[in-house]
Amino acid sequence: MTELDLAADVVTLTAELCDRESVSGGEQGLADAIETALRALDHLVVTRDGNTVVARTELGRPERVILAGHIDTVPLTDPPNLPTRRDGEELHGRGTVDMKGGVAVQLRIAAEVTEPTRDITFVFYDCEEVEAERNGLARVGRNHPELLEADFAVLLEPTNGAVEGGCKGTLRVEVTARGVAAHSARPWNGVNAIHEAGTLLGRLTAYDAQTVEVEGLDYHEALSAVGIRGGIAGNVIPDTCVVTVNYRFAPNKSSAQALSHVRELFEGYDVVVTDGADGARPGLHLPAAKAFIEALDVPVSGKEGWTDVALFSAHGIAAVNFGPGDPNLAHHDQERVPVRQLVDAEAALLRWLA
Amino acid sequence: MTELDLAADVVTLTAELCDRESVSGGEQGLADAIETALRALDHLVVTRDGNTVVARTELGRPERVILAGHIDTVPLTDPPNLPTRRDGEELHGRGTVDMKGGVAVQLRIAAEVTEPTRDITFVFYDCEEVEAERNGLARVGRNHPELLEADFAVLLEPTNGAVEGGCKGTLRVEVTARGVAAHSARPWNGVNAIHEAGTLLGRLTAYDAQTVEVEGLDYHEALSAVGIRGGIAGNVIPDTCVVTVNYRFAPNKSSAQALSHVRELFEGYDVVVTDGADGARPGLHLPAAKAFIEALDVPVSGKEGWTDVALFSAHGIAAVNFGPGDPNLAHHDQERVPVRQLVDAEAALLRWLA
Repeated sequence: MTELDLAADVVTLTAELCDRESVSGGEQGLADAIETALRALDHLVVTRDGNTVVARTELGRPERVILAGHIDTVPLTDPPNLPTRRDGEELHGRGTVDMKGGVAVQLRIAAEVTEPTRDITFVFYDCEEVEAERNGLARVGRNHPELLEADFAVLLEPTNGAVEGGCKGTLRVEVTARGVAAHSARPWNGVNAIHEAGTLLGRLTAYDAQTVEVEGLDYHEALSAVGIRGGIAGNVIPDTCVVTVNYRFAPNKSSAQALSHVRELFEGYDVVVTDGADGARPGLHLPAAKAFIEALDVPVSGKEGWTDVALFSAHGIAAVNFGPGDPNLAHHDQERVPVRQLVDAEAALLRWLA
Repeated sequence: MTELDLAADVVTLTAELCDRESVSGGEQGLADAIETALRALDHLVVTRDGNTVVARTELGRPERVILAGHIDTVPLTDPPNLPTRRDGEELHGRGTVDMKGGVAVQLRIAAEVTEPTRDITFVFYDCEEVEAERNGLARVGRNHPELLEADFAVLLEPTNGAVEGGCKGTLRVEVTARGVAAHSARPWNGVNAIHEAGTLLGRLTAYDAQTVEVEGLDYHEALSAVGIRGGIAGNVIPDTCVVTVNYRFAPNKSSAQALSHVRELFEGYDVVVTDGADGARPGLHLPAAKAFIEALDVPVSGKEGWTDVALFSAHGIAAVNFGPGDPNLAHHDQERVPVRQLVDAEAALLRWLA
């Protein structure tokens, strides 16, 4: 495979990165190409950990910021939505939004800005789209915590070119309605757990989800059933019905507080946690964050989805999401990015760092 | 294996039949034994079809009645609930209730009553406990419809020694609530099909099931969710939730009428039929049925569960359920029959036929 040309414009570079298919677990070729391209730059110190590449300026600046992005994508469609295709003002194909557009911006900044106003740590990591335990950013945090030391982090996940601060937390629980099994010809001998679950769903739909302001940004909480299962056989009144509920909570709550809220809501039912993750506060009051917001001059809001900014938050680093692409088109069959957003994102970061 | 001794008392014979394990599909040994025992009786003409045995008196009586029972059972428990065990006044073990007690009564009548008041057709059939297409009684109806000609039929399924006339019909449908998929961090971009299903379940639980009198007997209708499924992934607002609903309807309705009732109830939702079967009217106004009820002098009610009396009904033959054993203990791990009910059932049929 040919080397990556970091001197190419950001749109060409995005297409080049997308065309080097790197579904989670298959990032090695792309990680090799990124490592090679970055090692050729004298102003960067490069470290490799698995298929994650970290490159740092070491200029002794009083502030250090991180620009991070994952290099894996979700699987291609069938027929495959690659190679990329330019259609008017949009670049189509897997990864254009989530998030090789952002990765291209990172690489452009790495190549262009040899003397940044603040020291920069670039992180290109693997396995973001799969189970949390495979996440390359989390692995670097465990293996080389010193590489993630910084005052502020920007995660280049798609935000349509806006700044989205922090992120909501997420909690998943299984709530079980119980009954007593019986033959469906004589249901009065039992108690129908699915009918009981109707009451449980009533509590869910009646729930008044709050919008919570945290450090000046609004986070819209949400409580949703994401799964339901019940039933043993076509002639049996079921004794169990399990509803999987996902609670997305504002980052002023911990996971423990979120769980206690959910337990209260579903009092009288068994509630078992299946997974969860804390959110992240936006940290926009911090000096590095303020300077970032001022330099960019783009809209700022709370991030609704959970992202790896929460990993930075767990390391004590304030972090925001800022990247090209409409997040609603991430993982979409018609994934595509307006090329204008790629160019604008690069220009915005140059205003801040050059 | 030794031959069946039809001269043994009905309790001994029940134990003997149960101990010859015959889970659906494995009835051959028992069918062979029954065929051999019946062929030894001069007053009966015996026909074999697969593992179903039919034996008829041919005395030219003006009336003919059928005594029918299936010889298969559901699988044994682990550890196995066989061989049978006598505990005080109860006989324990797989098949004691459903329905080798009834089969033992049939065999006793076949052996004892050489000159019945009405001609009798005894049917011992296979594969009642499995898919309808394997049902031995239905197969005989297809292969030898003349063998099932009769004025009245008694199915010796367990009824606790009462007479249960006719049976309710059953209809199973899948009712689908639809929504629009979205990310669970931004549920306001979609419509949650599981939450929609809450409304659907509300209609179900609010449903006022009727008790319908048909030919003097009460049938308690019932409408129940017997299954529910929905959900794609833990972070996706699902666009589909499917509720499987079982409607048990009185035998004054056809399956088509039952379906139209259910469609009306779930107007606005997709309703797809998965299976169903007509019920059976009790036919207790017919002369043969009246004589039966008078001779037995036991309580008479409508049959709640669907049974093969509906197969007789489809052949134009009025049929009732009458047999030893508590139907609530059918298929039960602790399946057991009071021996008194075995003795009483035999005595009752002797009053009618001898």
